[in-house]
This record gives sequence, structure tokens and C-alpha cells, in this order.
Amino acid sequence: MRNEQRSGCPINLSLEVFGDRWSLIIIRDMMFGNRRHFRELLSQSEEGIASNILSARLKHLLDLGMITRADDPTHKQKAIYSLTEKAIELVPVFAMLGAWGRRHLPVSRELSIRAQLLEEGGSDTWVAFMEELRTLHLGTPKRPGALSVFAELHAAYEKVLTEVETEAG
Amino acid sequence: MRNEQRSGCPINLSLEVFGDRWSLIIIRDMMFGNRRHFRELLSQSEEGIASNILSARLKHLLDLGMITRADDPTHKQKAIYSLTEKAIELVPVFAMLGAWGRRHLPVSRELSIRAQLLEEGGSDTWVAFMEELRTLHLGTPKRPGALSVFAELHAAYEKVLTEVETEAG
Repeated sequence: MRNEQRSGCPINLSLEVFGDRWSLIIIRDMMFGNRRHFRELLSQSEEGIASNILSARLKHLLDLGMITRADDPTHKQKAIYSLTEKAIELVPVFAMLGAWGRRHLPVSRELSIRAQLLEEGGSDTWVAFMEELRTLHLGTPKRPGALSVFAELHAAYEKVLTEVETEAG
Repeated sequence: MRNEQRSGCPINLSLEVFGDRWSLIIIRDMMFGNRRHFRELLSQSEEGIASNILSARLKHLLDLGMITRADDPTHKQKAIYSLTEKAIELVPVFAMLGAWGRRHLPVSRELSIRAQLLEEGGSDTWVAFMEELRTLHLGTPKRPGALSVFAELHAAYEKVLTEVETEAG
């Protein structure tokens, strides 16, 4: 058996950063769900992430410079996690990955509406969403009159969720 | 420890498909390097994939419907692997992942020129490349006058590789 070696291929290095799917799942939940505390990331997880995996992956993401950790001034004894610019710039990757998943995999209606809106909105929507994430996570001042892509995605999700639940009786 | 559960989120399901980075590395090598035989995928691997991992991941990709396997009429006793439509449609994901990697990770010049051309070419280039991959992997007839994105990417790679080797003496 040969030894693995690193290569300077951008796709390979990107995949090394992710390590496994949980790291990207956490970034997804911080990005699209604005879950910033350990407890939220744990209890609201659609995939039921285990607390030891969540701890390990948060540390991994901190080491990689994908997230930062700070004391939350509004909650005693709670840390708040924020995305870095490096992570925020994954928006187009998530948009394309979501578009592919919607087309080829058995996705649920309520969990794919946001992917659909991101795909249909195209790069203008991604740029606006990244700008909004910089305000939420990096403290960049909000541009006057900027629409909230986050609110739009969230409202669409809630609407479809209600429809699905009503249909299910 | 809670049990993991599946969710119908398109990003989560996409990440479940990949499993780990080796599956995407293999698709990358088939897509951008036109490596179609086991021996090529093994011996030309920039990341030094081990043969047992390559075997396991090829089986995984076959099970997922990302690749197909057939006897190669030009080589006795050799199987040829082809990408399916599902895998070919990952081109935009690779383009975005490569663009992100180029910006944020320590990529090498020769292995990132193709990512650069894919990013700069935008969706017209991706569509043309997917069309070419359908000809190479699915036997779709070649459109008269279609340019070869594959050849263009490969020539750019060879050119940069020569430059890098010359500079290194």
C-alpha cells in the first residue's frame, strides 16, 4: 500500500479542508439557520449531530480559520461562533451543491426551497447573501436599503413547512 | 449520544453521496484527466491513492450511479469506467469548489490553471465541457464545430507545467 501524499490541486485541498460532511453541515447551519451557539447547533440539527462530533468539528473549523469563537455579551457563560470571510465565500459552492442535490437526490420539499431560491436567484442573490452574512458574522455595516436574503429564504422555508404540515394533517 | 438521522436537505444528501474526499477525487480524475482504467487512476494519482481505497470507492460510485463499468473493447481483460449524467452535472460544483480553493488555499500553479480557466470561462464553458463529457462518457454524438474544453484545459496545464519545471531548473 502506497502512502498518501498531498497535492496542490485546488479541488483536493478544498476537500482536505472539509474533512468530512459534518464540517460542512455545521457551516450550513450557521449560514442558513444563523445558529451561533453550541446548544442551537446541537438541538436543532436536522441530522442529529452528536455532541462529541459537534465539539470536534467546531475545533477543526476554528483551526482551519473557517469560524471564530467569542464570548457572547448577551449570554453569560455562552460562546458565540461566527463564520469567517473564508467560510462566507462558500455560498456559491453551497448554491451549486444544493442545485445538484435537488436535481439528483430524494430531497424533501421544505428543506430544498432555500436551495431552489439560491439557484434561481443566481450570482446576484449569492453576492447579496454574502454581504448580509458579513454584517451578521463579521460586523460589517449594513448597506442602507439592502434586502435580507436570509429573511427571504427563511420565510419561504416557513411557508413550505406549513404547507407540508397542513397536507400531512 | 444521539443517533444520527437522515434529512432531506439537498446539501446534506449531496454530502452523504460523496462520503469522503476520495470519491470526488476519483470523479475529478475521470473528468479532467480522462483516466478511465483502474491502472491509470492508481498510477497517475497526484494524491497517491491506495489501491484498496480506489477499489472500494469505485464500487461505492457504481452503487450510487455516479459511474458505470464496461469491458473495454480496445483492451482485453480491462474494464473501462465512465461518468454518468449525474456525475457530469457536478462540473459547476467542481468549478465553484476550485474557485474557492484557489482563493483561500495554498494551491500549486500547475494544478490550479484548469480551475482558473473554468472559473473565468463561467457557465458557457461549463455547459460546453459537460457536452463534451457526454460525448466522451455517454457516447452522445459530438456537435459539429464544438470546441474541446478538455483539450484547452489540458494544453494550459501542460504549458504551465513546462514553465514551472523550467523555472525549477
